[in-house]
Amino acid sequence: MEKIKIGIMGYGNLGRGVECALSQNDDMALSFIFTRRDPSSIKPLTDGIKVVPADMAPEFADKTDVLILCGGSSTDLPVQTPKYAEFFNVVDSFDTHAHIPEHFAAVDAACLKGGHTALISAGWDPGMFSLARLYSSAVLPSGKTYTFWGRGVSQGHSDAIRRIDGVLDARQYTVPVDEAVKAAREGSVEEFSARQMHTRECWVVAAEGSDREAIREKIVSMPNYFADYDTTVNFISQEELNEKHRGLPHGGFVIRSGKNGANGEHTSSIEYSLKLDSNPEFTSLVLVAFARAVYRLSSQGQYGCKTVFDIPPALLSPLTPEQLRHELL
Amino acid sequence: MEKIKIGIMGYGNLGRGVECALSQNDDMALSFIFTRRDPSSIKPLTDGIKVVPADMAPEFADKTDVLILCGGSSTDLPVQTPKYAEFFNVVDSFDTHAHIPEHFAAVDAACLKGGHTALISAGWDPGMFSLARLYSSAVLPSGKTYTFWGRGVSQGHSDAIRRIDGVLDARQYTVPVDEAVKAAREGSVEEFSARQMHTRECWVVAAEGSDREAIREKIVSMPNYFADYDTTVNFISQEELNEKHRGLPHGGFVIRSGKNGANGEHTSSIEYSLKLDSNPEFTSLVLVAFARAVYRLSSQGQYGCKTVFDIPPALLSPLTPEQLRHELL
Repeated sequence: MEKIKIGIMGYGNLGRGVECALSQNDDMALSFIFTRRDPSSIKPLTDGIKVVPADMAPEFADKTDVLILCGGSSTDLPVQTPKYAEFFNVVDSFDTHAHIPEHFAAVDAACLKGGHTALISAGWDPGMFSLARLYSSAVLPSGKTYTFWGRGVSQGHSDAIRRIDGVLDARQYTVPVDEAVKAAREGSVEEFSARQMHTRECWVVAAEGSDREAIREKIVSMPNYFADYDTTVNFISQEELNEKHRGLPHGGFVIRSGKNGANGEHTSSIEYSLKLDSNPEFTSLVLVAFARAVYRLSSQGQYGCKTVFDIPPALLSPLTPEQLRHELL
Repeated sequence: MEKIKIGIMGYGNLGRGVECALSQNDDMALSFIFTRRDPSSIKPLTDGIKVVPADMAPEFADKTDVLILCGGSSTDLPVQTPKYAEFFNVVDSFDTHAHIPEHFAAVDAACLKGGHTALISAGWDPGMFSLARLYSSAVLPSGKTYTFWGRGVSQGHSDAIRRIDGVLDARQYTVPVDEAVKAAREGSVEEFSARQMHTRECWVVAAEGSDREAIREKIVSMPNYFADYDTTVNFISQEELNEKHRGLPHGGFVIRSGKNGANGEHTSSIEYSLKLDSNPEFTSLVLVAFARAVYRLSSQGQYGCKTVFDIPPALLSPLTPEQLRHELL
């Protein structure tokens, strides 16, 4: 059987994760790595892989079945995904929830122009958590869904701290509040505030002679990121940060409880949870599974932009429909 | 908007559950209840619903969009699902894992003959647990999946005990073994025996003067059902059974852990769990959500037999694709 040829655009944490993920999927193979950096500065893990300047990517379109876009959601993907969807089938992990509708529209238009299939917003949230929210709300219409993140490192919040004057480095952990998780599991239908659901724990390396109290104050009062949460700030040395906080673990829970029975006398609870040693590596594994589905849809002529909600689950698996019914149903 | 018209075939625990589930889904309405019993013996919860003899069901096919088959998997569904798939779009909860391939083939042939869509083996296992197994194995190819059931009442095992001479009534609880659940969560790749994963707890009402030790021995040595498990047998009065064990709670976990990273140095764990006060009511809610998908596929001319693996998740929800992307992605 010929392998599905996967290209990687952008070789950071996510790009390297996709490269590792491909080595676990026997029906797929890495075709090229595309980069905006100097190609000679990239050292792929895979022997003999060609590293190509991003600008030249369209010339390699006929040798790549699906291009996985491994850039960031703030500035890279809003440009790259529509741009490359004209030349390639693409998958991305666009995670700015509020801008998904406009991103979807731009990518869909590019797909239809080029005759390609795209899947946006794959990963774990959006992605696997979105699926958990959809399935659980479809089967428990009379209920409430809670999403908890953590305990894990938020790269966006860590970056926000690093931009403060006098901060050399930082790690921020998002931590779910136990009482809220417990209430959700017990079938609560309470509305929780942001503060009631998560706390934020910061580990900060301050420059010598900087005003730590001013840094602490800037963090805890930062709008959107920290002001609405109970935030603790801990100052540590760069060495300690490197030693104790260098990983990117994450995870969380989607919990939905609903009432059922003739008079709502019974409760059903559904919980989907993830515990990840490496956030970008797991995201990469999800991107690769959805790339398989995108390849299959494109082969069937099903063009346009899709999300995880549009994909029949069977398309994610290398197994045949007969094997799936026999082994996993 | 016109409501999706749902028929119920068989008015036991599951049929009544479907009737309750429909009242939570505003885009659907109960059309008819079909029964093999005397229709006058059926008292629907819904006002004004016509109860029709099962034999006359085909005459009502044009007034029913999807027929939900609420019979049992051992003798009812292998006959009923193919039979009615010729006249109706159908959904069933066929749960005899070993016979799914032949059931699928029979229902598929009937669907294609009649121009209908069927979905078999919906519920929680097979059903939601099957989806958890498929998604988690697709995104974590290098790993191992464990399915634990319980703590909950197994109706099949309870029935098996009731067939023993001298037994008047019985309830059997399937109980996951804590150590095995813990190992699965921690990323174990051990093979567990049936005995290592679950214990079986029996509550038995014996006839006066019966030999309890003989009954106990018959239960614990029963092949397939109990012989491979650590089984405890407790004798109680009918009153105590009625008071303390009359519900049908169930639930369980699907847990998959896998290795990732360049050298398998990281672990990812996925857990999907259910906690259900009423097993048949939750199964009914799943059947109804999949009936919505079957109606939509049939309206698009996508005929034939499907399983939960073939259904794009968006089709399960009453929300539009735009709403889903905006609210749940």
